[in-house]
Amino acid sequence: MAGRTHGMHAEPTTFGLKAALWLDALHRSGDRLERARATVAKGKISGEVGTYAHLDPAIEAHVCKALGLSPEHISSQILQRDRHAEFFAAIAITGGSLEQIATEIRGLARTEIREVEEPFLSGQTGSSAMPHKRNPIICERITGLARVLRGYAQMAMEDQALWGERDISHSSVERIAIPGATGLLHYMLRKMAFVLNGLRVSPDRMRSNLDLTGGLVFSHRILLELINRGLTRDEAYRVVQTASTAAVEGREAFRDALRRSGHLAEADLETLFDYTHYLKHVDAILERVGIPSAAGVRR
Amino acid sequence: MAGRTHGMHAEPTTFGLKAALWLDALHRSGDRLERARATVAKGKISGEVGTYAHLDPAIEAHVCKALGLSPEHISSQILQRDRHAEFFAAIAITGGSLEQIATEIRGLARTEIREVEEPFLSGQTGSSAMPHKRNPIICERITGLARVLRGYAQMAMEDQALWGERDISHSSVERIAIPGATGLLHYMLRKMAFVLNGLRVSPDRMRSNLDLTGGLVFSHRILLELINRGLTRDEAYRVVQTASTAAVEGREAFRDALRRSGHLAEADLETLFDYTHYLKHVDAILERVGIPSAAGVRR
Amino acid sequence: MAGRTHGMHAEPTTFGLKAALWLDALHRSGDRLERARATVAKGKISGEVGTYAHLDPAIEAHVCKALGLSPEHISSQILQRDRHAEFFAAIAITGGSLEQIATEIRGLARTEIREVEEPFLSGQTGSSAMPHKRNPIICERITGLARVLRGYAQMAMEDQALWGERDISHSSVERIAIPGATGLLHYMLRKMAFVLNGLRVSPDRMRSNLDLTGGLVFSHRILLELINRGLTRDEAYRVVQTASTAAVEGREAFRDALRRSGHLAEADLETLFDYTHYLKHVDAILERVGIPSAAGVRR
Amino acid sequence: MAGRTHGMHAEPTTFGLKAALWLDALHRSGDRLERARATVAKGKISGEVGTYAHLDPAIEAHVCKALGLSPEHISSQILQRDRHAEFFAAIAITGGSLEQIATEIRGLARTEIREVEEPFLSGQTGSSAMPHKRNPIICERITGLARVLRGYAQMAMEDQALWGERDISHSSVERIAIPGATGLLHYMLRKMAFVLNGLRVSPDRMRSNLDLTGGLVFSHRILLELINRGLTRDEAYRVVQTASTAAVEGREAFRDALRRSGHLAEADLETLFDYTHYLKHVDAILERVGIPSAAGVRR
Repeated sequence: MAGRTHGMHAEPTTFGLKAALWLDALHRSGDRLERARATVAKGKISGEVGTYAHLDPAIEAHVCKALGLSPEHISSQILQRDRHAEFFAAIAITGGSLEQIATEIRGLARTEIREVEEPFLSGQTGSSAMPHKRNPIICERITGLARVLRGYAQMAMEDQALWGERDISHSSVERIAIPGATGLLHYMLRKMAFVLNGLRVSPDRMRSNLDLTGGLVFSHRILLELINRGLTRDEAYRVVQTASTAAVEGREAFRDALRRSGHLAEADLETLFDYTHYLKHVDAILERVGIPSAAGVRR
Repeated sequence: MAGRTHGMHAEPTTFGLKAALWLDALHRSGDRLERARATVAKGKISGEVGTYAHLDPAIEAHVCKALGLSPEHISSQILQRDRHAEFFAAIAITGGSLEQIATEIRGLARTEIREVEEPFLSGQTGSSAMPHKRNPIICERITGLARVLRGYAQMAMEDQALWGERDISHSSVERIAIPGATGLLHYMLRKMAFVLNGLRVSPDRMRSNLDLTGGLVFSHRILLELINRGLTRDEAYRVVQTASTAAVEGREAFRDALRRSGHLAEADLETLFDYTHYLKHVDAILERVGIPSAAGVRR
Repeated sequence: MAGRTHGMHAEPTTFGLKAALWLDALHRSGDRLERARATVAKGKISGEVGTYAHLDPAIEAHVCKALGLSPEHISSQILQRDRHAEFFAAIAITGGSLEQIATEIRGLARTEIREVEEPFLSGQTGSSAMPHKRNPIICERITGLARVLRGYAQMAMEDQALWGERDISHSSVERIAIPGATGLLHYMLRKMAFVLNGLRVSPDRMRSNLDLTGGLVFSHRILLELINRGLTRDEAYRVVQTASTAAVEGREAFRDALRRSGHLAEADLETLFDYTHYLKHVDAILERVGIPSAAGVRR
Repeated sequence: MAGRTHGMHAEPTTFGLKAALWLDALHRSGDRLERARATVAKGKISGEVGTYAHLDPAIEAHVCKALGLSPEHISSQILQRDRHAEFFAAIAITGGSLEQIATEIRGLARTEIREVEEPFLSGQTGSSAMPHKRNPIICERITGLARVLRGYAQMAMEDQALWGERDISHSSVERIAIPGATGLLHYMLRKMAFVLNGLRVSPDRMRSNLDLTGGLVFSHRILLELINRGLTRDEAYRVVQTASTAAVEGREAFRDALRRSGHLAEADLETLFDYTHYLKHVDAILERVGIPSAAGVRR
């Protein structure tokens, strides 16, 4: 499929590579969330101001153990809120990675692109007014909820600078943000799993979109080849840009314009206009992310 | 000194314990920053869309090594921005911990409290209009800059959901936020180090503030003692509350009111009204944070 | 051109109507910014705590007049920061409207859609590696900077709750955020004016994209027509959905499938498949926004 | 009472003036909220993409009138979200002004200051562990909820840049933020009204705190008087700073040190050490805010 930068076709890639990038980001978020969970999974029974004035630290240790928490080694009346800020930041960042996937699916689902489609249950009604529409509404919802998670992270970061051995201003925030952020992230993950499990992917559309520019996606390779053949970078750039402008403006096919430039013969072009050249390292990359190439993810 | 919750005296604590809590939070922030630095210390030369179409991965490995970066094992045209969001979040959370220290110093420096004072260079001019004033302006500045760091974190979290194999919208954000956040954090840390190194701490004021309420800080201990002696919790609470209300309203000293309640003799009160009772675990806590008690931090 | 909801073709609209919507939002932002400017264009010389202890209010009035400010009728050492929060919010909201325009241009510029293109100076080099690319980088930059403006607004809102008659924590924020937000908004407006003035709009691409679905954009009108002819809403919905599904899946053209349904004759379809039906109110809407139809904006 | 800047005594003021400043900020917020309410009190029935393709604008006008909304003169499938961003910003800014009041009450309620106290219902139990404590927990709660309102504003500002004629990502945000922000603001206003109506204000504590520094609050006036008598600003500053340093360090009362400086006689000091000098304009200021001086708010 077309790899796209700035929304424009850049060079060929595969949908598997794109998905593997998402997977990798979610692995990082998983690690981040586990670390953040451990960061807040602390207990304390150290008294009004953290001195254990009326209760031995041993009791704290005993109770925490029973609760599956590790005892905080120093505290005020409460755990320090940098711990919770990290927790909410990890949730918001995970939301951002889900938003990235959702945004990409929304982009690829656009009418003119139609390379992927959100699962659409048979019997499901689409738009009430426009029966033909199958809208990526789950991905849009995830996009919106990522904003909500960022809002919670912001609130939690403001909770850090409490007064003295504690003021209770963090509490009203947390009563809203803890159930809000954890519940929403759970919901978003489940919804995203549903979308990804049932995603309709269209290799035909990917191929036809890739062909849409008549080979412009090969322009960088042509540029490098011309330099290899002795042209300066500027000369090569001009040759490619002239041919690509002709193609973009619909005057001549890119390949024809290149042939007419006199620098490349038809046999050269046959070799250069080849998608598989771009994909030779993809299996190796997938393996680095933990996806065995035998799984044929790329195909 | 008085430990304070909700801005009100709660129970005795020590300034060393308070400072150790700050230290512990900064240790966590140090770890968080190192982890975040490693998270962004990645390099990639994987081409326009991350396929290594025109360059062998070995070159990326070679260059990254020379730059002291570890090669990203999968990338698009860029590193994924959850990495940078984590970096900015770690900076903002560190700012929040500095803000907490700054807020506490500002509170303890108030005219009526005056337990600590920001360093004031001899020869330095205070307020231009009010020569008597020594204002905690560095701590106020740190308080404000913590807000700025939170703003940068918010921007960076919004950078995650880029389109396709890259859109360049993150770049304008990062040109502002990377020098902004790293430079300000550096500045804040240096300024806070200056404040803490030169902080004027007044044990006399701490003691006289602690005595201000005529022993109300002992009320929880009295409550527990009355329960130990057989009163129900409700009975004990009423005895203590009656005596403390009399004291708060200036009708009778807390200790006198308690004696008059008939539940505690003068000898009992002598034992109970004892600050050192509250501090018996402080050395052990400090040791858990890595401060040897021999250092006498608490004194 | 195709009006799009959820990224999918919905019903026909015009590019002029879209631009008029942007214009209208910017008019609101203009009003909001003027109001916000007046809100902060206040002066005060009321002394250390706002009592005019050493200076008559008449002097404040005199100086403010000379500065083109209106005197604040009550103040502490400073103006209250809700005024500044409103100022930064107005800037951030303007940024959001610019981001909306930028996002739309980026979407319409995508390779598969290509209905608009950012100005591209002749002689300008596109992507260094990919000569064929003309990327909407100014719009991407504006998108990123809108995030920055939101960050500043957040900082400014945190500045409101200063202590007593003033603490100076707002100052470090404002030294960064005032030049930052005003300078960036100015830059964004200039850049957006450049983009809009030079925007390359392709009516041909708009038309061919609109035709891409073989008339599915007319589905709502067909639905209403079938109801008018006596079908229940459910029946009509099923007829339209069946035909549109056939079209989406490439089995049969939408119009053919509808004809085959037996509910509509070719003459009916000729009448119903008509873009101009959708545009009959557009001139009137434009006039409501202050665009005279004689200007032919819509054409 | 003492006016305070940087948390330090500055010059005398009155509690009425402080409250009038709060009132004035809330008046601004009231105006801002009314304006914001009008900004979102718009209706639209303009069809799928805002063209009124299937319904006459007259119907929109009719329905909006019945609903008490004014019809939007141009729209896409929805109202543009800069309107809602303004609405949430107005709510967050109001929250910031409430936070300012709450923060001030918390500061003035501190054990060492005790000039005001949150209403404490007779029979109400204070801290469960510390019967003597009367904590400003409502003000702390309002402080926390102001953070929540800022978070909602941030989410709403991110909702502006929707795709095309509408994407539905704003909806999930608004389902949370609209009831959240409006409900919380309502709650905060009711709670703040309760606090202010029942606020226990202690003129005695205000007076004794003001006297705490032995007249240092008069230092600026002394400085100006010395300049009036022919000293240069530097000379005058040194005289006042020397005397105030002696006082701050407890070596000599400020007034005595000034007398000993030889620049001011006891009769001069009697005139200069006069709180009422500072309050001569207060009634006039209150009148400017709409508080008739006959109401004796200041007393």
